[in-house]
Amino acid sequence: MQDQYPRIRLDVSNMMAENLGGRGINPNAVDRLASMAAAAQTAVQAQRGAGWLGWTELPYNQDDVVARIEEAAARVRARFANFVVLGIGGSALGPQAVQLALNHLHYNDLPAAKRPGPRLFVEDNIDPERMGALLDIAPPHESCYCVITKSGATAETMSQYLIISDLLKAQVGEGWQRHIIAVTDAAHGNLVQIARTEGFETFVIPDGVGGRFSELCPVGLLPAAVCGIDIRGLLAGAAAMDAACHDVDVWRNPALLAAALQYIAAQELRANIHVMLPYADSLRCMADWFCQLWAESLGKNITRRGAVIHAGQTPTKALGVTDQHSQLQLYTEGPFDKVVTFLKVENFRREQPIPHGCADFADVAFLGGKTHSQLIAAELAGTAYALRRAGRMNQTIILPRVDAHTVGQLLYFFELCTAYMGELLDIDAFNQPGVEESKIASFAVLGHPGEKYAKKRQEMQQTPAAQARYVL
Amino acid sequence: MQDQYPRIRLDVSNMMAENLGGRGINPNAVDRLASMAAAAQTAVQAQRGAGWLGWTELPYNQDDVVARIEEAAARVRARFANFVVLGIGGSALGPQAVQLALNHLHYNDLPAAKRPGPRLFVEDNIDPERMGALLDIAPPHESCYCVITKSGATAETMSQYLIISDLLKAQVGEGWQRHIIAVTDAAHGNLVQIARTEGFETFVIPDGVGGRFSELCPVGLLPAAVCGIDIRGLLAGAAAMDAACHDVDVWRNPALLAAALQYIAAQELRANIHVMLPYADSLRCMADWFCQLWAESLGKNITRRGAVIHAGQTPTKALGVTDQHSQLQLYTEGPFDKVVTFLKVENFRREQPIPHGCADFADVAFLGGKTHSQLIAAELAGTAYALRRAGRMNQTIILPRVDAHTVGQLLYFFELCTAYMGELLDIDAFNQPGVEESKIASFAVLGHPGEKYAKKRQEMQQTPAAQARYVL
Repeated sequence: MQDQYPRIRLDVSNMMAENLGGRGINPNAVDRLASMAAAAQTAVQAQRGAGWLGWTELPYNQDDVVARIEEAAARVRARFANFVVLGIGGSALGPQAVQLALNHLHYNDLPAAKRPGPRLFVEDNIDPERMGALLDIAPPHESCYCVITKSGATAETMSQYLIISDLLKAQVGEGWQRHIIAVTDAAHGNLVQIARTEGFETFVIPDGVGGRFSELCPVGLLPAAVCGIDIRGLLAGAAAMDAACHDVDVWRNPALLAAALQYIAAQELRANIHVMLPYADSLRCMADWFCQLWAESLGKNITRRGAVIHAGQTPTKALGVTDQHSQLQLYTEGPFDKVVTFLKVENFRREQPIPHGCADFADVAFLGGKTHSQLIAAELAGTAYALRRAGRMNQTIILPRVDAHTVGQLLYFFELCTAYMGELLDIDAFNQPGVEESKIASFAVLGHPGEKYAKKRQEMQQTPAAQARYVL
Repeated sequence: MQDQYPRIRLDVSNMMAENLGGRGINPNAVDRLASMAAAAQTAVQAQRGAGWLGWTELPYNQDDVVARIEEAAARVRARFANFVVLGIGGSALGPQAVQLALNHLHYNDLPAAKRPGPRLFVEDNIDPERMGALLDIAPPHESCYCVITKSGATAETMSQYLIISDLLKAQVGEGWQRHIIAVTDAAHGNLVQIARTEGFETFVIPDGVGGRFSELCPVGLLPAAVCGIDIRGLLAGAAAMDAACHDVDVWRNPALLAAALQYIAAQELRANIHVMLPYADSLRCMADWFCQLWAESLGKNITRRGAVIHAGQTPTKALGVTDQHSQLQLYTEGPFDKVVTFLKVENFRREQPIPHGCADFADVAFLGGKTHSQLIAAELAGTAYALRRAGRMNQTIILPRVDAHTVGQLLYFFELCTAYMGELLDIDAFNQPGVEESKIASFAVLGHPGEKYAKKRQEMQQTPAAQARYVL
């Protein structure tokens, strides 16, 4: 079992002051945090499945759902050339992350016979050029649309729904409803009611599962299953990580140690930036998914007791080795304001040998006979070493390989780490009150009839617009 | 002329303290910087075309080159189904940014007859799974490879060259050299010599043009022209922005004002993060290009006089409206540590009406009859307003439309702004010494025979590897 499903590992050696010439974190600082860390772990465990911690139980309570998803996925595969997710935020980032991680890097470009499922498109913006561009290459009669929104009030997603349902009625006619699958709340909100009225196939986003913690519920599992991904493996991986994080000892619980180190880095060492740096193209979107999780969960202005805090590392992503040629200069010589988290893959699924050649040019010839696996591993090692020598905190999450199980582990690891970090900061990691002002102001601009929008409209009109002297 | 080629504008109203409830920048602070800013502008003007400022003259000195590029592009279009850039850093980010900005959002997925050129692939990593994935969908006999490296010593690019040239010899045989175009230094380095020996068509990266400032030389112009982009328009736009930035008065030179405000934000107000936030899918990769330019140019540990500085905002990108559902919570409630730069498009190239529907659901029905242009504009306005109300510095670069001319303006604007910022910080914005340590360490790991690598190998072996107690 251990061999069949290797566990991902966390190496924090390069976070520690003893390896960074005195910069970085002293193990004593972690020890001092031990009781707070234990309390954080206990609090998360105590709340499992309750409130907004519904996501903790997703690896265990979805047997029936998984079976239904697999049936629906088989039907979609048999009938449609394209599977289009209409969703935004977690509803989009999770499906993209898992798809890129576990399918062919040019999945959509493969001929249909070489793909385990239809082409996947994730439409998470309302750029006016975007829907038309999609329709140019993926016509509605060949497409199944997966509309994902818990509330059914997400303006972007519901505007897409209006466009697509209108097109389907016109172009497909009778039976157009079979081109739509809804993923939404079981009882509340617009979409579940629309789905009932129209008779759309519907999957439920369980109670207590917020958007950014939803990848392991139907939000993520349905698109993954449609594209042939082993969703039972994802859930088994998540369960394995859960089991690996039951210890209250910060030195024996990887997600807890990761949270404690980030807490110290951010609150004591002014590392207000967290760089997620996968050394694998397949994990590129996993970094985007992490960036939402970390930013929206931890970027909060008050503690749960109402004290002002303005917490939150800014997550940013880069890609190894690519961004060594873009960001590494800054990381090694710029301010001491960041932590770099490498995602390292030990065994890639393909190998790329480098042939011999260019014998007259030593710098080129020396590469011949090596492989891209060796090259990328050497560059990661070189970069981690350079950061360490420059006194820059960095840690490495090691994936023995990239498969459904390790990806499930990674998702759950980051979710747990985020929950622990919320406890350490004493903030609510599961709300997002800071986006409300923007939403109300946007609706006010659009002329929404509601009273609060009218009031906001008035307030905005009283605010001076762009001042001429400040526009060049 | 003014109407035909509208100029992009910079609106910094929301950077100013008077609009941010006291946070943000006081105009007096800009005035105090006026003489330093004037000196920066004068210094950049004085060095035009000299040293590493060769890029300033690219809008003016490439008539012959442009004609040759257009001829070569026509030949490529006539013969190849795929154009594959082998390059990394600026050699990859620029071509991707311009392609996404100016061609169809699903360009590669269009049928050949609807595309102005071959499919474009930009291979900027050495993930062992990546080249194989590309070859699965774009076989060598249908592909032209554009190998871009000034030195010809870029390990990633030259390893790709070894792989591709070997494949071409095996699969194409005689005439394989016509599948390769080299873009490199005129006289120095491996690639120009290899190109001469093999007889590859070759374009020159001019002296004084570093990788991240190379988009307007053949590095960027050739891929763009191959894909049917108006490269003369790009250069004309760059020239127009150059002309708009000749004033030494910080209040009358948009790139200079932008640099001065970032200088104050970073050095006086601790805004060590710069978020580039386009509200347009087409400008998504432009944000990546900017992130390299800003990070690698300004992330420096010493001034030109040798004083320790550790300068450099960390640039990060987001996408509007998508990342309102990912990052906005952090931007409005988190630390006061960032500046947000919106890229706003006034007129999109397509419109997407939202049909009426869902009459029973007020929050959805209210969207009917509007357009995605209205929705995205309202959300940008709402987000800028929310940031302003929360006291968060933000500025907006307004593109009247996205075309070759405005994209040329934007590229040159950012380049000038970066050069001015380098002057204000008194750093060398055109070198990248901080990546050397990583490169040497990587080559050491790979067993490069050179003496400095052997020495580094020894040094690394003496450094304790991952410590067991820090690996969970």
